[in-house]
Amino acid sequence: MDTVILSDWLATRLDRGGAEPIYRQTLRLTQQAILTGQLPPGTKLPSSRTLAEDLGIARNTVLHVYDQLTAEGYVISTTGSGTYVADTRPDAAAVNGRNRPEAAAAGDAAAQPATHAPTHAATHTAVRPASDSASQPQRERNDLSTRGRRLIRQAGVSAKQWGAFMPGVPDVSEFPARTWSRLQARLWKEANPDLLTYAPGGGYRPLRRALSDYLRVARSVKCTPDQIIITTGIHQSIDLAVRLLTDVGDRAWVEEPCYWGARSVLQSSGITLAPVPVDGEGLNPRDEDLQEPPRLALVTPSHQYPLGMVMSLARRRTLLEYARQHDVWIIEDDYDSEFRYGSRPLASLQGLDEAGRVIYVGSLGKMLFPGLRIGYMIAPEHLVDIFRTGVAELYREGQLMQQAVMTDFIMDGHLTSHVRRMRALYGERRQILIDAITARFGSELPVMGDEAGLHLVLGLPDYSDDRAVVAAAYDAGVIVRPLTSYYNDPAQPRRGLLLGYACVPNDGIGPAFDTLARVIEQTALTSSRSPHASSRPCP
Amino acid sequence: MDTVILSDWLATRLDRGGAEPIYRQTLRLTQQAILTGQLPPGTKLPSSRTLAEDLGIARNTVLHVYDQLTAEGYVISTTGSGTYVADTRPDAAAVNGRNRPEAAAAGDAAAQPATHAPTHAATHTAVRPASDSASQPQRERNDLSTRGRRLIRQAGVSAKQWGAFMPGVPDVSEFPARTWSRLQARLWKEANPDLLTYAPGGGYRPLRRALSDYLRVARSVKCTPDQIIITTGIHQSIDLAVRLLTDVGDRAWVEEPCYWGARSVLQSSGITLAPVPVDGEGLNPRDEDLQEPPRLALVTPSHQYPLGMVMSLARRRTLLEYARQHDVWIIEDDYDSEFRYGSRPLASLQGLDEAGRVIYVGSLGKMLFPGLRIGYMIAPEHLVDIFRTGVAELYREGQLMQQAVMTDFIMDGHLTSHVRRMRALYGERRQILIDAITARFGSELPVMGDEAGLHLVLGLPDYSDDRAVVAAAYDAGVIVRPLTSYYNDPAQPRRGLLLGYACVPNDGIGPAFDTLARVIEQTALTSSRSPHASSRPCP
Repeated sequence: MDTVILSDWLATRLDRGGAEPIYRQTLRLTQQAILTGQLPPGTKLPSSRTLAEDLGIARNTVLHVYDQLTAEGYVISTTGSGTYVADTRPDAAAVNGRNRPEAAAAGDAAAQPATHAPTHAATHTAVRPASDSASQPQRERNDLSTRGRRLIRQAGVSAKQWGAFMPGVPDVSEFPARTWSRLQARLWKEANPDLLTYAPGGGYRPLRRALSDYLRVARSVKCTPDQIIITTGIHQSIDLAVRLLTDVGDRAWVEEPCYWGARSVLQSSGITLAPVPVDGEGLNPRDEDLQEPPRLALVTPSHQYPLGMVMSLARRRTLLEYARQHDVWIIEDDYDSEFRYGSRPLASLQGLDEAGRVIYVGSLGKMLFPGLRIGYMIAPEHLVDIFRTGVAELYREGQLMQQAVMTDFIMDGHLTSHVRRMRALYGERRQILIDAITARFGSELPVMGDEAGLHLVLGLPDYSDDRAVVAAAYDAGVIVRPLTSYYNDPAQPRRGLLLGYACVPNDGIGPAFDTLARVIEQTALTSSRSPHASSRPCP
Repeated sequence: MDTVILSDWLATRLDRGGAEPIYRQTLRLTQQAILTGQLPPGTKLPSSRTLAEDLGIARNTVLHVYDQLTAEGYVISTTGSGTYVADTRPDAAAVNGRNRPEAAAAGDAAAQPATHAPTHAATHTAVRPASDSASQPQRERNDLSTRGRRLIRQAGVSAKQWGAFMPGVPDVSEFPARTWSRLQARLWKEANPDLLTYAPGGGYRPLRRALSDYLRVARSVKCTPDQIIITTGIHQSIDLAVRLLTDVGDRAWVEEPCYWGARSVLQSSGITLAPVPVDGEGLNPRDEDLQEPPRLALVTPSHQYPLGMVMSLARRRTLLEYARQHDVWIIEDDYDSEFRYGSRPLASLQGLDEAGRVIYVGSLGKMLFPGLRIGYMIAPEHLVDIFRTGVAELYREGQLMQQAVMTDFIMDGHLTSHVRRMRALYGERRQILIDAITARFGSELPVMGDEAGLHLVLGLPDYSDDRAVVAAAYDAGVIVRPLTSYYNDPAQPRRGLLLGYACVPNDGIGPAFDTLARVIEQTALTSSRSPHASSRPCP
């Protein structure tokens, strides 16, 4: 490659009428000439005065460019003798991992920078120029790791987060945004600096106190404010427990079916999933499950996700006793427990635990708005300090201002009244949806898990392909989720659709369900027993 | 254990003048009697009328208690024949993991709940009563996992987050809270529901556009808005890259010394750390490092953390070429690069990368306030979709309202002007601190890494124990961090103190340094070469 004269190189390339300032263009083009080897190491640059005259630009501009090139190590300026292109070519021996004659002795940290004077250029071995390697066929790159590939392949997250019948999303348009904004403005007026720094481990103390009071009454948990750890939600709470309490390769019981997000969090921390079946009483371990106690069990006792059954008291007591005897950690995910229609909310598993084996996790997002990202966990008393240190060390949390707003929101009674109002509203929507289902399908398709939460499950015949229904519904403008995607074991999962009704206006439920029903009839009910499940990905 | 008559049990225990309502007391005490076996399975409860009369309380109260007991599965109510205590004792066979004769067949998900009629009680084997097991000596419990223990043992997070000389904390009292609050109030007035739900993978698009514009100019990165992924900060950005691109057991180069938080994040995801020395030109791999290419290299090229040197252009090019040839991922942590005093900021490594091996990570917390929790990463173009899916799947992010406020803050020019103002302010404070150091110690103690960032490193003699200095300083009211704690290899780390000057008012620097200087003189300089380093933990 020919050595270029800098003035010529720049003169043909500067775009004087362009949007990019001349300074930036000059700098960028000179860097490019050095990086590509067209201005090789040791080349003397013209004096700033000469270059400015050659290009017809201000000398100050050139001086700034040279300063920046010097600061970034592209050139070496020596008083009196001028400015030379530095040797910044990759060290070929280092790149290839061979022994280097000039290998630095270990432990010379904080030594002075070595200055590559132009005359040193010859001691470096040139590597293939960039253009050469770029022309070679792109090698097959092993981009993602095995766990990364699995995470992406199994990802359950949806591209859409709103609309009929997106499960698990509350009606955020009903959130009392004015009240929130007023409380927020009041706190920002003071802008207490203590609330702008990192959160101390565990979160804002008044919020922890308010939450422990709330959860003691609403969920029969037993805890002190100290046991509450504020997190950004269920995902982070599970992640923290997993990283503190499990090692890579440990086994975790998960319910079959279970929440896809928990599955992803567990697996990406190196946990092996052991799916355990559920029946009408909740988690129902088989003998082979019981004979190999897991390190961790992740359960949704108050409202199995996604099927909705409640874990019976006998099963709760058995699980707690099993955990006590075999040193199993239990993570109780108490999602959606505020929204029960008809029946009263059941007491938490945590409140029954005498052995300190239960870590209770919950979130405020479904009660208020999901973007809030405030969750909480209740750590066993003897682990409180460890969890507080862990959450600060791993996630470096902050958001104390928002936690303070949340505290005022709770203390002023807005949380309770909003939840009460939403429970009534979602109860209406649930009924409208059930009525629509019954009117269309009678008892042909069973409805499950409708006693609580923000969604129900509409069962489909075993021969149907729920993923195909979901894809067709998506194309028709209706979001539903296939029940099969919540199973870990692909063999014979139960077919069905998750329908969220909470975020759909009352008068939107009927029309959206009509659309969905047509899709179901065309996709799931007309076909005879299909030999192969569709492999079409769910949107 | 004797069977109790419910009326007697309650009559002696109800606290009629207490704060707890009679309903709650009656419910709690009855549950307790059932859980402890004092009301065994099959016991018939008195009729609600009888119990109400016996206790002298309202019949409605008793009816509510019975309803709740039924709902929670403590009792079985059969119309006509009365209310019986259900058998909810733990299943002994299940607890012990032995084969159970009544083991449920696999796959009976979503079956109807089994009702434990009172007459079934005899088929259950009684387990040891709780009181019995509680009296046994508490077994040694293997509470934390190996990785959990290491995380807590190595935790670098400080209990205090504010005050002289806390490193890495900006002056949050200078943050233009009024401006922020005004922008925030404007957005909350509209409260666009789209901004209250979960974030789509990658974050708020206008913020991504604003950040890509900002970073292109300020940091010479090459990226489109699509390549920007909004995270909650450096920790989450590193965590995401690690979970997508590495597997358990993979090796990662980290600089020696390095940031404790990154170390914790990497290790808790199963990564083996390979510390690589740094010298005056930044990362300086030894032959043994080069011969075993890692999966990942985590570097701080623009300002080595915590020592402050800049990675030379030659080293940058060598690292990039090595990464290209050996399929190494590079995470470039560009922290604090906005705050340089004197020299101009250097271009990012990402901008030099032609092979798509660099993941650039940064954060807005140090520029504005740490509690903000807005960070960003730039993904290589061919991995953008994967990173967007990964961030949504693993963390379920939200906070779009705050991201929208941030966008307005940037677009209205407040970010640039605030950073400019802070750079001048921190520059003054840096100079005051350096002057104080020089006045007290002359050239006896070297100052390192003072050209950029929010902290500098004050070197201490090799024979001194910097952890002991830190502990003594903490007791004297001054927060500093020991340089040794940033090293992975405990053999012969360099001794020193990290001093953050950004969050200390100008007139507070002198007095705080006087206090620290006395501690240094008493703890680090008077002692002759001490044979053992103190094992006192750093606060």
